This record gives sequence, structure tokens and C-alpha cells, in this order.
Amino acid sequence: MNRIPQIIRTAHLEYRVTNLAQAREYYVDTLGFVETEATSDALYLRGLEDRNHHCLILRQADTPGIGHVAFQVYGPEDLALLETLYRPSAQFMERVPANTERGLGEALRIQDQWGFPLEFFWKNAKVAWQLQRYQNYHGFDVMRLDHVSLLLPSIDPAYRWYTEQLGFGCSEMTVTADKSTKWGAWLHRKQTSHDLALQIGVGSPMVHHASFISGSVPSLLRGLDVLGAQGDHRFIERGPGRHGTTNAFFLYLRDPDGNRLELFTGDYLLTDPDWDPIVWNLEDEQRQTFWGADAPDSWFNEAMGVANWATGQIVPTTAPTVQTRPTYLNRNND
Amino acid sequence: MNRIPQIIRTAHLEYRVTNLAQAREYYVDTLGFVETEATSDALYLRGLEDRNHHCLILRQADTPGIGHVAFQVYGPEDLALLETLYRPSAQFMERVPANTERGLGEALRIQDQWGFPLEFFWKNAKVAWQLQRYQNYHGFDVMRLDHVSLLLPSIDPAYRWYTEQLGFGCSEMTVTADKSTKWGAWLHRKQTSHDLALQIGVGSPMVHHASFISGSVPSLLRGLDVLGAQGDHRFIERGPGRHGTTNAFFLYLRDPDGNRLELFTGDYLLTDPDWDPIVWNLEDEQRQTFWGADAPDSWFNEAMGVANWATGQIVPTTAPTVQTRPTYLNRNND
Amino acid sequence: MNRIPQIIRTAHLEYRVTNLAQAREYYVDTLGFVETEATSDALYLRGLEDRNHHCLILRQADTPGIGHVAFQVYGPEDLALLETLYRPSAQFMERVPANTERGLGEALRIQDQWGFPLEFFWKNAKVAWQLQRYQNYHGFDVMRLDHVSLLLPSIDPAYRWYTEQLGFGCSEMTVTADKSTKWGAWLHRKQTSHDLALQIGVGSPMVHHASFISGSVPSLLRGLDVLGAQGDHRFIERGPGRHGTTNAFFLYLRDPDGNRLELFTGDYLLTDPDWDPIVWNLEDEQRQTFWGADAPDSWFNEAMGVANWATGQIVPTTAPTVQTRPTYLNRNND
Amino acid sequence: MNRIPQIIRTAHLEYRVTNLAQAREYYVDTLGFVETEATSDALYLRGLEDRNHHCLILRQADTPGIGHVAFQVYGPEDLALLETLYRPSAQFMERVPANTERGLGEALRIQDQWGFPLEFFWKNAKVAWQLQRYQNYHGFDVMRLDHVSLLLPSIDPAYRWYTEQLGFGCSEMTVTADKSTKWGAWLHRKQTSHDLALQIGVGSPMVHHASFISGSVPSLLRGLDVLGAQGDHRFIERGPGRHGTTNAFFLYLRDPDGNRLELFTGDYLLTDPDWDPIVWNLEDEQRQTFWGADAPDSWFNEAMGVANWATGQIVPTTAPTVQTRPTYLNRNND
Repeated sequence: MNRIPQIIRTAHLEYRVTNLAQAREYYVDTLGFVETEATSDALYLRGLEDRNHHCLILRQADTPGIGHVAFQVYGPEDLALLETLYRPSAQFMERVPANTERGLGEALRIQDQWGFPLEFFWKNAKVAWQLQRYQNYHGFDVMRLDHVSLLLPSIDPAYRWYTEQLGFGCSEMTVTADKSTKWGAWLHRKQTSHDLALQIGVGSPMVHHASFISGSVPSLLRGLDVLGAQGDHRFIERGPGRHGTTNAFFLYLRDPDGNRLELFTGDYLLTDPDWDPIVWNLEDEQRQTFWGADAPDSWFNEAMGVANWATGQIVPTTAPTVQTRPTYLNRNND
Repeated sequence: MNRIPQIIRTAHLEYRVTNLAQAREYYVDTLGFVETEATSDALYLRGLEDRNHHCLILRQADTPGIGHVAFQVYGPEDLALLETLYRPSAQFMERVPANTERGLGEALRIQDQWGFPLEFFWKNAKVAWQLQRYQNYHGFDVMRLDHVSLLLPSIDPAYRWYTEQLGFGCSEMTVTADKSTKWGAWLHRKQTSHDLALQIGVGSPMVHHASFISGSVPSLLRGLDVLGAQGDHRFIERGPGRHGTTNAFFLYLRDPDGNRLELFTGDYLLTDPDWDPIVWNLEDEQRQTFWGADAPDSWFNEAMGVANWATGQIVPTTAPTVQTRPTYLNRNND
Repeated sequence: MNRIPQIIRTAHLEYRVTNLAQAREYYVDTLGFVETEATSDALYLRGLEDRNHHCLILRQADTPGIGHVAFQVYGPEDLALLETLYRPSAQFMERVPANTERGLGEALRIQDQWGFPLEFFWKNAKVAWQLQRYQNYHGFDVMRLDHVSLLLPSIDPAYRWYTEQLGFGCSEMTVTADKSTKWGAWLHRKQTSHDLALQIGVGSPMVHHASFISGSVPSLLRGLDVLGAQGDHRFIERGPGRHGTTNAFFLYLRDPDGNRLELFTGDYLLTDPDWDPIVWNLEDEQRQTFWGADAPDSWFNEAMGVANWATGQIVPTTAPTVQTRPTYLNRNND
Repeated sequence: MNRIPQIIRTAHLEYRVTNLAQAREYYVDTLGFVETEATSDALYLRGLEDRNHHCLILRQADTPGIGHVAFQVYGPEDLALLETLYRPSAQFMERVPANTERGLGEALRIQDQWGFPLEFFWKNAKVAWQLQRYQNYHGFDVMRLDHVSLLLPSIDPAYRWYTEQLGFGCSEMTVTADKSTKWGAWLHRKQTSHDLALQIGVGSPMVHHASFISGSVPSLLRGLDVLGAQGDHRFIERGPGRHGTTNAFFLYLRDPDGNRLELFTGDYLLTDPDWDPIVWNLEDEQRQTFWGADAPDSWFNEAMGVANWATGQIVPTTAPTVQTRPTYLNRNND
């Protein structure tokens, strides 16, 4: 039998934070995540729409960055298929029993061929839904995790891996001006525009951002006003704006440790298997902002390192082999 | 000199409530008013946009209803002019020194010729603005008092009083189908569509509702969701909808004592003295709801009694001399 | 092999209209559907988010009602599986070649065991996306078809059919007060709260409504204002409001022929196969409207008949075996 | 008697445009202004909320810039008072008869002591209201003119002129870091946060921008999406954002000639004569953008020249005597 592993979706990720109390205040009190469980060195958070234990872990660490990125699969047989699939290329692979990470069943931990710390699992503890607990909404009304953006040395090999070996569909992609080279790809398993964004950036393996759904445009703007009112405007990096790609109404924030997250709302449902990817030109200003504003330099120059599963240390990075930004953005940077 | 009293605007009103703690929970915790000061028998509340001490007083009383309706004037000379003006017709008139009502300077209290308990003052203690304290916004994001709706036996005499003696402008009015008789009039001193609505209802003197500005349409809808989430949907009487008159996006609530308030957003600025009133036909369904839905029976059959300044008792009411509702609404009530 | 047919989603439906020009004006000019193609007796419409040929057909007919409801499947083998599955129970079954219905590949037409005219197909002509053609947005900014509500004599048999034979998941359900009987079920194939609502109503087989996604809450409210501005408020039957079930911000309209459609926004993504259905009590007022307002009588007393594939005539209906409305709604109807 | 002229509000202004057809397309078709009247060399536009002939004139000219800024007063006696007031200082003064400018009664034209071309009038032709013609709303749903921003060599003299001689109130002001010098002042006659903004900029006399009310936040964002969809994103200069000053949700656009306009929504009502101005520090980042984003250089370096009433030529400008931007903005400009 030739079955490929059945991934449901990008399910959660772990941010490393240097001050858990400060991070809790930011993510829960200010941004509006729901706290499911706290341990001595971690907080397990979810969104208002989540019925699972967590979509975000904040983990006490010496340095910021990404602890791991996790995908939920359909069942235990998918973990076995993944083991087989990754064995030749994985830098590290480990099965951990249920509850090694709170709320999760057994999991498969892999440092993949590009150095990303991934986790696969099929069982997640169920918790109460907060969707109609409107009296508790605050901040950005964070609903759920949507996607994670991975920085790669080049797009093609990872694109093939995710679409051919792991069954991801491609909703949209960006190509360089001469159309010869992919510069970004938006891949999905769940029926929205993405679960993963594969992109070029300052180095690899790094995570550019994780993106969470804000309840609506008013929710997103209210969150901005709350940040402003608290004097936390320094955490606002880019936006609000509308991406050309995926049509998302977006905002990018940094957390007190510098980790980057996106809040967004308003992409589209993608249900049909015969979808033709929408293709954008890297040099199209409206690709990145439909309203024409340039992204700030930090957007291109900074990203989050990822942890080594075995050592807990941040993985060394290498520069990409593809140009790191549109050429029109260099006009002010010479 | 022939100067008329210079009223700035409808400034506050007092709701009588039978359980102050319960009322506080409703108005402050749920609806989103800001508490300025509490005494043993009263709460002084304001909106997020208010820089004055209060726009709503909740007063402990044996029965619900309206304690009084207050207008701010420009200066002490206006109080004198009002005394002269009201002396022939007032049922009761009294000057009270500063701070008789918390936050207020000296005031003139009048039971007017229709039996309404009015208060005029010119000085109001200043308090901190909450407009950019977005982290405290909740419920309906109540901004400020907009207007009060007075039920009268007929419209014309009060219309003449307010426009000719007190300088109100008329933004819009409703007339009966044969155009012979005013059925409602929206009068303003401040530069919006109204400070007072003169209307026909179940009896007079009564107050149909007081209306407060909600920050925006999303604020108003969020408030509805909060009421629903708390199981407080029984307090929702009518709406949300759009009034034809004044173009307001509206919602009508009752409080735990049955007092009625409107939350609204979205009327217009009215700055020009040569404004021609917009005239609506009572039988035009879109007058009351631009989207065509009928108001519920309680809307026509119930209103709030007003207190006698001298005795604190609710003033007896008399039936109006004008039809109390559009004829098309009787089709289901025979 | 024991494979079940793989349905992607509810893909389109056909409304019968008695005046195609009038219907075009309503659906395209007023509501905001996009016209893909017109023939002498039909209009093929889609939403702003659709990249397929149509999600709604308006078909000239002598009487209003529903021509058929269509589901897209993954491939031709699914049509074969459906033929096998339906053969014992179908009242009518026919294969039609590509382009019998404009834009579609070969299709399987079935009058199912409850009398509903269904259509299954796997290929749909691709057309240009309008999602970022914001200059053309108008009316309700209709995005796509979401679901169709089928009225049945009782829920259980159809519930088992759709979940066991056709692989639908159940997001939410309503049970009678004694919990003995299902009164409604929200079933999905795509990853949202529903593709089909199975409900009890005035008769069966009938369709209560088809539901289309409006771009956002402001889109939905703007559409209401446009209807009001055009004097088309008579088409507004119920809402706006928030359903308890599915959390939808909803509005129900009738078309000039009396066909009913819902416009809604704001349910949730449902990706996980281990979802436990949310269960509502029929007697819970907040089930139907989270804000507590009763649905109008017409809501329960009126629905759309469905056509017989063979004759084109409306199928005779029978009364349900389950109570047709919450008991608390009878208080005003004795 | 010592009466001062009674100004109602800033009523309209005139933009000089080099291509009237192109300007019409931009302002009417794209932005959503309503066309009242066209002549061979001018277009008279109004907003959806306006019941007067125009709030914006587009005038064919060789060069862009501002033709004049106009204030409506209460009556003819105010024009006489203004003549007396301005006679000693005005660089030019002329009475013009009714209909010299379409829709206006007699007017007084003044080149004031700072070189600004002002117009005062008291009668404006009435035209149909579009507020409830929702089917015609498009673009930014432009409601009305709100204010005009005048660039001055220093703030104090003009501040005294407008507040002492012309009865303006001050809602908010900006002072330099050492608090010694006013850097900006928001002045109003109508009961909102401003009719005039007095500011420091690249030169004087110049107009930095005119500001028009957009119907709501969704209206403003929809307008942005329309600009993007049309490939007109190059006209978007700054925003969307929230100003600290006045709390406005703002957007700044340029027109095809480079003239600058603001679209905004969401300031506050200011009715009380005892209002204490809110004072901001020039170096407070949240003053200009509550969310912390810097204004672009063009914001400070570019503004619109104003016309000489007598010659029609743009008035030469002089540099300000006050620092032209916050010092923190120079960090990237050395």
C-alpha cells in the first residue's frame, strides 16, 4: 500500500520566552489568548475557537525562538508512516509517550532535513469551547492558530517534500521576476489558504512568524488600540494592512522577547482539490501589501531561530541561495 | 434684552432602581458605563467620551422610573432666565446649592407644565477622559448620553415651548397620515440629530427611553453577544435595526427593573441653522425600521413613569389625545 | 474495497423563478451575486470567492421552489459509487453528459428516498476569481454558497444516511426537550460548521433555505441598508441576529418569488475528525437566536417545494412526525 | 456692541487640478464624493451627509494647490463684522455677489494676513440628502468635509486670531518638548474636535491637507481595497492608523495632481464651552500615531501651495520659525 501520512493541520507551536510571567501578561492579558494549563516552565494557551488543549506553548528558555512546530495527524498509523518517510533524512527522530507534552497523546519528534524541530501527534485533550463566551473576549479575540512561516535556503526542495510526500496543496506562490525561481509558497492541509508558508529570509532554518486568526477586522483594530493604550506600541512591527497574497487583513507583532507573530483575518476557504495556485511576481508591490506600503527592514532582516530537539540549543543558520527581498526595496538601502 | 436661556445639551438623567448592587452590575460590568462615584443610595456613571462627572445616575428607590432629566446651560444667568420663563407654568420650582447632586454646581429643579421633573445646571465637575483607555472598554463601549424621549399628550404645545422659548432646533418629525398632526419631533441643542424626542405613547408624563451612544456598530453587536453569553437576552427588547428617522443604528434594552434605554450609533452632524426638518409619515414602515421589522407591542404599551420632585412619588399619567401607534400595527392586535 | 463516495461539499442549487429578468435584478444588482452566464431560461451565478462556474442557478419556471441541490465529488469513481449506493432507494436516477448543465462535467441526477432532487458531479468549469476586485463589490458582498437546509419528516433516518453512507460529520444538533428525538442536525463535508442542515418544518420534502456567505458583518448590514433604500424591505424576513447554533451572524431574505435564502457570516472552522457535536435543546431560546428574539411565524410555516427531476413538477409534501416548533413559540399562537 | 463674527464651520475648499476629467474620476467614481454640478472649469462636489451644494470644488488650473478655504457664517451681518475685522490686516478683500461661486450667496473673499485665500458666506443652495441612498454608496462613503490643516510660520499669532477674534475653541494642542512653544492646535467652531488644524510644516502659507469624514471604519477600509484593486495604491500616502490627537482613525491620500486629503472617522463630540484642551508633547510618538508607526518623510516635506485671490498664482512661501518635525524622526535622516 502506498498511503501517505494524513496530516490534518498545523496544530500548535512553541515560543521560547525568557520571562514566563511577562509572556503570560502579554499573550493572555493583552493579546487575548486563553490559558489552558500552566506548569513550572511552560504555559499552554489556546484560542477562543479551539476545543483542543493548546495551539501555543510558551516555554521558559535562555533565549527566544521556536521550540517546535507541531502537526496533528489522523491516527497512530500516520505516525508510523511518518517515521518511515523521515528516517532517511531526519537529523533526529524520537517517539515520546502520551503527556510528555501536556494534553497530547504519543508524539513523534523530528529534526527534519532542513533543521526544523517538528512534532506529529494524533490525540489532543479536549477542553471547553470559548467561542460563545463573549464576556471573556479581549485584546485581539484570538481564535486559533492558522499557519507557520518557515524560512528555507530555497523553496523547491521543501515544496516538493510537502506537496508530494505529505499531501499539502498549494494555494498561492511567489516567483522571482524572471519566473525561474519560487520565492514563496503557501501550502495547506486544512481547507484555508495555508498551514505553512515556505519563504526566503535572513537565514535557515528559521521561523519568520506564526499566524493566529483574530476574530474580525474590528477585533484586530481593537487589539491595536489596546496595545497603544497600554504604551505597548513598540510591539507593533507592521500593519495593519491587506496582503495581496491570501487577501489577509494582517498585523505583525513582536513579543517582549522579540518573537514575531501575525494576527490576521479574512482569507478564504479552499475546498476543491483542482485548485490552480495563484501566482504572484516578487516585484509586484501589491503582493506584500495590496495598499502599496513597504514592509520595514526588520521584516526582512530578522526572524526566529529554531531549537535543536536533542540539545535545546538554537540551530545555526545558513544564508539563502535566493534573493532575500524584492529589488524595489533596495532603493532606500544602498 | 430679550435673550432666551442658552441650553448646551441634555446632560444626564436619573433612573430609579430597586436594587443598586444589581443595577451596578448591569450598567457598569455588563453594559460598559464608567463609575465615577458611589454614595449610599446612588451611583454616578459616565461614558467613555465624557469628561464630566456623570451622564447617568442610578438612584435607589421603591419603584423604577425616572428621577429627573437634566440640561446643562452656559452660565448662572441662564438659570435666572429659566426661572423667569418657567415661573408661570411650573408645578414646582426650587434652587439647590452646589453639590446637592454630586459633581454639580447650583441647580434649578422644575416640575414642568407637563409634569416632567427637570434639572438645569451650568457647572459639572471634570473627571478623567477614558476615550483612549481602550483596555477598559467592554460591553457596549458606552460613549455618552445622546437624548431622552418624552411622552406627551400631544406634540404641538411642547414643540412650540422647546423651539420658541428654549431655542431647540428640529431635525426631523413624524406626522399622522393626513398630515394634520405631529406625532413625533426630534429636537436638538447640540449639533446632532437630537437632545430630546417628543413622542406619543401609553401615557404622559412618561419617558419612553434614554439613549446612549455606543462606540460603533461592532461595539453594539459585541454588547449583544455579551448579553447573550451571560444569559441576559431577556433584557433585549428591540433591535438591532436601523431607524428611518435619524438614520440611527439602534438597540433597545430594559434594565433589571424594566427601565428602558437605547444604545445607538450612526446618526449625523447637524450644524446649520437653516436646516429644514425631515418629515416622515407615521404610516411609513421604514420610519421606525428602515429594514421593515415591526416594533414589539411592549414598545408602544410600556414606558417609564417620572418622579415628583417634591414627593419622590411617580406622577400619575393621562392618556394621549393622539393615536398611539401606526394603524398597520393593529392588524395583528384585534 | 469498501470505499464510500467522497463528497467535497454542497456546490450549488437551483431556484425556480417566475420572472428571470426580475430575479436577475434582485440577485445580481441588489444582493451582489456575480453573473457567469445567461441562457434563454437560466442564469448561472457565483460568489466573489468562487472560482467555479456557479453556486446558484436561477431557472425560469411556472412556480417557485427548488430545482435541485448539487454536491461536488472528487472524481468519476465517486459517481459510480453513488449510483450503487442510491440504486435500491432512489425514486429516479439518471446520468447526464457534460454540459447538460452549463459549466458542469457529467452528472448523476437522483430523486432520493425522501424525494429531494439531488445532483452529483465532479468537474466544474473554472472562471475568474473576483475576491480582490473590490471595485465590483456591492449589496451583501456574496462570497459563496455555504449550505442548504432540508426539511424531513424526522431526522434520524437522514442523519444516518448522510453520516454513515456519505461520510458527513455532525457539527451540532438540536434535540427535543426530553432528549429522545433529534430535531435538527448540522452536517458537513467541507471544514466549516455545515454543508447541510437537516430540519423539521412544515412539510417534506422541502428546502427551508439555502445559505450564502456574506463577506463580513459590515457587508451584511450594508446589504440591509441597500434593501431599505430601494424600498425592498418587504424581502427581509428575519434578522439580523446571531444563531446560537453555529454562532452565525444571520439574515433571512425572501426573493420576489418567495424563495428563501440566508446570508450569513461568522461561523467557525471545523477540521478535526474527533469533533463532538454540540447539542442544543429545542426549547432553548438562545439556540435559534442568541439574543433572544423569536423567529416569525412564516419562518416555521413556509418553505420551498422541490422539483421532480422527471416531470419538473413540485413534489407533494407530507407533514413531519416530529413537533414543528419550540413549545414556547405557541404561547402567542393559540 | 462688541459682537464677534459668528462662524458656523469650515464649509468647503477648492482644490486646483490640472485635468478635470481625471480628477472627477478620482474624487467621484473612486473616492465616493457626490457630484452636484459641473461647469466648464469646475466640479462642485458634496458628501453623502451634506444637504448643501458643495463641500469641495475641483477647479481646472495650471498647477495644483488650494484655490481657497471657505467658512459659513450665520448671516449677512457676520460678513460686515468680518470686513471690519480683517480690513487692517488683509492683503486682499473683495465682496462678490451671489452665485459668483455656484450655489453660494454673496461672499467675502480675503487674502488674510498669513496669505491664505479665505472665503466667507452665509447662504448655500440646498440639495438632496444622500444619507439614506445606500445603493449609491461607494469608495470611502465620503460624508462631509471635516477640517482643513493650515501651515503657519508659528502657531501663536494665528491661534490668538482664531480663538480671540473669531471665536474658535481649542480641543487639543501639541507643544514642543520644552513646553515653551505651540507646535499645533486643533480649533473648532462646530461641535467636533476641529474645523481647523494649525500646524508647522515645510512652508507657509500652505495647506497640509483637507480632511473628509468617511462613513465608518469599514467604509475607510473598503475604500483602501478599492484603490488597491484599481492599481491606485500609489495614491495612499499614510495609514490607516489611529492618531493620538483627536483619536481619529485616519488615512492620507494624494490625488493625481499630488493634492493631499485625509479620510477619517471616529473623533468625538465637543459640546461644552469649558473644555480644557488636551495637550500633547511633540516628541510623543503616540501623538501622531497611537500605534507607534512613523509618518513618512513626504508627510513633513510636502504640502499644498495656496492661490492668490487677485492673480490666481500660487503664493510664495517662507520657512517656519519652529522645528518642522519631532526630533526622533531625524534619526533615520542624517
